[in-house]
Amino acid sequence: MFKTIEWTDDGVRMIDQLKLPTQEVYVTCRTYEEVAEAIRSMLIRGAPAIGVAAAMGVALGVKNSGARTIPELRADFDKIADTISQTRPTAVNLFWAVKRMREVCEGLLTVARGGTCPDDIGSPPGAPMNRGATEAEKIAVAKARLIEEAQRILAEDIAINEAMGRHGATLMPDSGTVLTHCNAGALATGGYGTALGVIRAAVSAGKKIDVFADETRPFLQGARLTAWELAKDGIPVTLITDNMAGHFMKLGQIKAVIVGADRIAANGDVANKIGTYSIAVLAKENQIPFYVAAPLSTIDMSLTSGEQIPIEERSPAEVTHWAGVPTAPENIAARHPAFDVTPHRYVTAIITERGIAREPYTESLKALSA
Amino acid sequence: MFKTIEWTDDGVRMIDQLKLPTQEVYVTCRTYEEVAEAIRSMLIRGAPAIGVAAAMGVALGVKNSGARTIPELRADFDKIADTISQTRPTAVNLFWAVKRMREVCEGLLTVARGGTCPDDIGSPPGAPMNRGATEAEKIAVAKARLIEEAQRILAEDIAINEAMGRHGATLMPDSGTVLTHCNAGALATGGYGTALGVIRAAVSAGKKIDVFADETRPFLQGARLTAWELAKDGIPVTLITDNMAGHFMKLGQIKAVIVGADRIAANGDVANKIGTYSIAVLAKENQIPFYVAAPLSTIDMSLTSGEQIPIEERSPAEVTHWAGVPTAPENIAARHPAFDVTPHRYVTAIITERGIAREPYTESLKALSA
Repeated sequence: MFKTIEWTDDGVRMIDQLKLPTQEVYVTCRTYEEVAEAIRSMLIRGAPAIGVAAAMGVALGVKNSGARTIPELRADFDKIADTISQTRPTAVNLFWAVKRMREVCEGLLTVARGGTCPDDIGSPPGAPMNRGATEAEKIAVAKARLIEEAQRILAEDIAINEAMGRHGATLMPDSGTVLTHCNAGALATGGYGTALGVIRAAVSAGKKIDVFADETRPFLQGARLTAWELAKDGIPVTLITDNMAGHFMKLGQIKAVIVGADRIAANGDVANKIGTYSIAVLAKENQIPFYVAAPLSTIDMSLTSGEQIPIEERSPAEVTHWAGVPTAPENIAARHPAFDVTPHRYVTAIITERGIAREPYTESLKALSA
Repeated sequence: MFKTIEWTDDGVRMIDQLKLPTQEVYVTCRTYEEVAEAIRSMLIRGAPAIGVAAAMGVALGVKNSGARTIPELRADFDKIADTISQTRPTAVNLFWAVKRMREVCEGLLTVARGGTCPDDIGSPPGAPMNRGATEAEKIAVAKARLIEEAQRILAEDIAINEAMGRHGATLMPDSGTVLTHCNAGALATGGYGTALGVIRAAVSAGKKIDVFADETRPFLQGARLTAWELAKDGIPVTLITDNMAGHFMKLGQIKAVIVGADRIAANGDVANKIGTYSIAVLAKENQIPFYVAAPLSTIDMSLTSGEQIPIEERSPAEVTHWAGVPTAPENIAARHPAFDVTPHRYVTAIITERGIAREPYTESLKALSA
């Protein structure tokens, strides 16, 4: 199998998702700016993977920082975190990961000013920080600890996906076709996947599932990524264009829909790749269950409704061209909202690592997040 | 402006819709087999345009026939009609046009055996055919009359579209955005268009309409053709991917949907380009009117429901590639139904050249077709 993202001594290594499926190429980002650009260009994409990349980008930036004092380190951290945070606005996992890294850093720096250090390198948990350490030593500890934290986020993400798989597999049909949109697979996460993780777990449990993958215009994550990773795994996959999904639902050929999410509001409204809302409406119209698989880090309890989720508008050139070939007349206007919001009334269940949430989501998500 | 299709002394001249929008190239088909291939390859497409092309293909085949006797001419006609009829199964206009050409031919051949000739060349209407004419002279009359009939079908088609425009314009909003799918424009007809004809008529009547065009995967008729012909006409057009339509409906940015049709059953079920059903469901969910504009020749009164309409399944390669560039891993399975059926309950009104039909369509379409 492949690794979507990993920490190496040289930097953050990622599979180049812009080159899939024709080439399997790995890129090593050696600066946090390169990590930011990889997120922005969608060389790496998928909410959980963006979260891991953000954490690793922060760790890489801090590692490379020449700060000699704690105030300098703190200033560098802020600059790095700002750059990473400005790459993409919708997936909340990015902000969640940066916040988690900031908390670790602040904890250490506070310790460095004389607090206690719960798990400091070289100190037993809860031991007071060595007050005699030099500022340089304290900075070295912070760097090491942030690198460790980023790797922990990756490892946790894979474990979370496997847990989601176990919960979600029970919802999958014993046999038949499951529709998915975009790529919520190993490529969208640290590994295993959210929606595709649930499908993997169901197949591992002996369910006879095949997958219809929407190609997912304009970036074709379904055609390029979902088809690629499922074929690699030996799970039967059939590619369709986005506008065919409703047709196959009406013909009774789809038993369930499962997708990932980029941000979920406290009421269960789901922001996900553009086109998800349409599929959810079509699923409801055809009495087909519509499932969302997402880690709790995707749930933004600060938002009461999906209407508050910022929707990224990307370049129209991604709509008017494919692989450099224009698909439309020159200078034609185009729109490119990268996400849409599916109101919770269309969502049959939300699968998380701690269990399955159903309506009323305001209560069920709160209980799982507690 | 451009001519989608026209009869010339050299053959049937068409704008090459496979080369649009990057090149405006015209092709002259010199044999009926070339016309059949142009329909099959979608060099010309759109139900009414296919009807015109089919009629011209028949006329061209008969013109080129070396038949010396009426039985030979009849045999040639059958061969030509069979070839043309086997190009594409869904658009009923093709079969309608071939049938109309056959009726003209049969009428003349019957006349040639001693009936009356209502509008024979050189004879006053209703005059008996010159019984002293040689068989060669009778064949020449049949050839000329079929060429004339094919050109008449083209001229009628344009007039019909203009009539649909006048009826349909009253349904369009005074201002705002109208969504269309695929290309039901001048390029899909003899000229002016069905759905885009209604938009043209509304704009001519002073309505401040702009158009959102679905790109319409996999063949991209919206991106390549609708965007091109509306831009050429100065009607504001914005390109979106198919999976964005629902998002913009939910945001309240679409005031009406209008599409064409490839075949309409007696109960009002509409076969049209794949993706139409999804848009219709989304329109209903968002309380947006969904209109279909189609000539009466698109209505197949022999079918009681849309379930009886044959749906063409085209090559999966059209789904897995774009402009020769693979969009998916090699050898991935794909499906390619070229059309879907929208049940009549989602259709707000059907605009024809004789007026507007509404539920119950079984009655309203019958009345208009009578």
